[in-house]
Amino acid sequence: MTRDQARALDAADPLARYRDAFALPEGVIYLDGNSLGVLPRAVTPALADTVQRQWGERLIRSWNEGWIDAPQRLGGLIAPLIGAQPHEVIVGDTTSTHLFKAIVAALRHDPKRRTVVSEAGNFPTDLHIAEGAVGCVAGARLKVVARDQLADALDDDTALLLLTHVHYKTADRFDLGDWTARAHAAGALMLWDFSHSVGAVPLDVTAAHVDLAVGCTYKYLNGGPGAPAFLYVAERLQAALANPVSGWMGHAEPFAFQDAYRPAEGMRRWLVGTPSILAMASLEAALGLWADIDQQAVAAKSAALFDILHAAGTAAGLECVSLTDPAKRGSHISFRAPHAYELTQALIARGVIGDFRAPDVLRLGLTPLYLSHEDVWQAGETLAQVIADESWRDPAYATRNVVT
Amino acid sequence: MTRDQARALDAADPLARYRDAFALPEGVIYLDGNSLGVLPRAVTPALADTVQRQWGERLIRSWNEGWIDAPQRLGGLIAPLIGAQPHEVIVGDTTSTHLFKAIVAALRHDPKRRTVVSEAGNFPTDLHIAEGAVGCVAGARLKVVARDQLADALDDDTALLLLTHVHYKTADRFDLGDWTARAHAAGALMLWDFSHSVGAVPLDVTAAHVDLAVGCTYKYLNGGPGAPAFLYVAERLQAALANPVSGWMGHAEPFAFQDAYRPAEGMRRWLVGTPSILAMASLEAALGLWADIDQQAVAAKSAALFDILHAAGTAAGLECVSLTDPAKRGSHISFRAPHAYELTQALIARGVIGDFRAPDVLRLGLTPLYLSHEDVWQAGETLAQVIADESWRDPAYATRNVVT
Repeated sequence: MTRDQARALDAADPLARYRDAFALPEGVIYLDGNSLGVLPRAVTPALADTVQRQWGERLIRSWNEGWIDAPQRLGGLIAPLIGAQPHEVIVGDTTSTHLFKAIVAALRHDPKRRTVVSEAGNFPTDLHIAEGAVGCVAGARLKVVARDQLADALDDDTALLLLTHVHYKTADRFDLGDWTARAHAAGALMLWDFSHSVGAVPLDVTAAHVDLAVGCTYKYLNGGPGAPAFLYVAERLQAALANPVSGWMGHAEPFAFQDAYRPAEGMRRWLVGTPSILAMASLEAALGLWADIDQQAVAAKSAALFDILHAAGTAAGLECVSLTDPAKRGSHISFRAPHAYELTQALIARGVIGDFRAPDVLRLGLTPLYLSHEDVWQAGETLAQVIADESWRDPAYATRNVVT
Repeated sequence: MTRDQARALDAADPLARYRDAFALPEGVIYLDGNSLGVLPRAVTPALADTVQRQWGERLIRSWNEGWIDAPQRLGGLIAPLIGAQPHEVIVGDTTSTHLFKAIVAALRHDPKRRTVVSEAGNFPTDLHIAEGAVGCVAGARLKVVARDQLADALDDDTALLLLTHVHYKTADRFDLGDWTARAHAAGALMLWDFSHSVGAVPLDVTAAHVDLAVGCTYKYLNGGPGAPAFLYVAERLQAALANPVSGWMGHAEPFAFQDAYRPAEGMRRWLVGTPSILAMASLEAALGLWADIDQQAVAAKSAALFDILHAAGTAAGLECVSLTDPAKRGSHISFRAPHAYELTQALIARGVIGDFRAPDVLRLGLTPLYLSHEDVWQAGETLAQVIADESWRDPAYATRNVVT
């Protein structure tokens, strides 16, 4: 591909107009939006209003003027991005805390089943939290197996299958409907982690009959660093599942100040404490962008961006570890390289920000809302130059870490 | 007291200079800083830098430029306010989530002890969370008794005594050292909730040999709506207690991406997921104010403000339910009134913002950093006028709720 060909794709791109909605940094091609999404311009005025007017002037009164309903309201904005109904999603807490609540709740759902099954190499917090959650339910245990042994691991003791839909390292994507059906066929519940999926690939939890899902909002949804995560519970399960972290915000009547816990109806029972309203305001502004975005257009552009980098990286001799079939992956591309860490640093030094995933992966995120085809083409050129140069193998590049 | 006398107190007030550090709303006397503290002026530029430069320009690189250490750094700012060492406090999550982690950890510390003791009428989330936490430890149970039966409730099955230091409704304050010693004498651990204490009354967890404490930062510390809470674990217990919500941020090497959980040394093991950096930035700016504030001066001014409102309220015929000995209470004053809800609304309509606590309490918060003696004197005058007027008994005042 030539620069002119990339520009021609940009000229025909139905998503090109969203680029101006983001405050993109100067001199940088940012291929790490799957770790921390860039700043939407709408966040700045929304935060100013939240701080100056809602907090500064209205003070405590703001709880009655929109704050108290923020977890449900933001859930309603995320619901269409995963194919859920608005009253099936709530926002607050972290992905990790939501996972903990959902895993304990699922284990208590059917006391005859005691095993949580998950994948070796899943994103660490999913496994770490599952380890902690099984410790909170008598007799429960965690079974972690390789991907190709997952199907065999499901049996009549399986309470829950916990999978991350798009793998954080390789971008491999599980088939949502197939794996949910396998869990159900074994009599288990299905909990998906959509952290690397939401805003990146089309999702339909309703069509796939998904039971539970969590997801991160600071990656493809651009909610801001450490933005609150979401939890989805299928309507059919909402009355049957209980939140083990039974805080006052999930009480049926939080302001009746009763000693005994009584869970709220619907998704509100999954709230714990008071969420950060500043964090919620930033996320709400970021979610506003998605109202009229066609998820199929996002997927199509992601595939086009992938192909550009795939061609550049493989031509430069890198091994691509992401699957080339767009239906089987998320929206990033990973290359395996023996000096992946130094290579990542060398790209950053040249203004192409991606990240390293131990031990040997260079991971480049493809965010269709604010990356142009020309950006990605340029990143591919830079990648080729860096590899041709080889000075990046100098240990001086290995001076600092880059975190998710 | 006359207005001139109140002004004379303001002229001699060593804390008067802090008032300008806050963006106080026009036309309002805000006696609800014990529910949501007002906006410190330093928050606005700190958030602008966090959003525009750190997030917008530096993006993922900011994790290495200050974000990753924010939980420990903010813990270090809170430590002197509770008499702890900097490495004994961490910030992140909500008060409720910290309570959950601490209660489960305390129950696992000595498997022969299975009971958590707490007080009937404690702030609801403390009891709700304790109810959830005992459900996560085999054989554990929660015993909730009236305040005058707490001492008798401690026995050789008590794993943990959980008390809120300053009562959210009455302002009654437990003696920190005495009650910690009683828990220890029974062989139990002591967990304090400092939500209505920190920034309001002097605290010394080291002198009192406190084991565990949590606290809210959006009340007297002015961190912003839903600001992240803190957890204190005494150094002597840090290696022995484990976080049941074992998320990746508490892992010894979060970026080594290992399947098995291995807790970090020190307080970092209590982290769960990624905290909101916007919420942390607001709180950090708010905490900056406290560096050179004398806690004894705060307590002395709180007592003077209390006396002004106590005189006004009792002269108007209200029953004060807060203790008059300043050593036995926090920094708010509560009056019992048969129409407390309507009375609260009538005060708000006249620009004096306090709040109602079911079923019959008018609660007025006294925040020495930004309230003048004249403010509080004026609030007392307004209270007397409202009660003399009696039109506030009109049901039209009962139109909306005011939340904590």
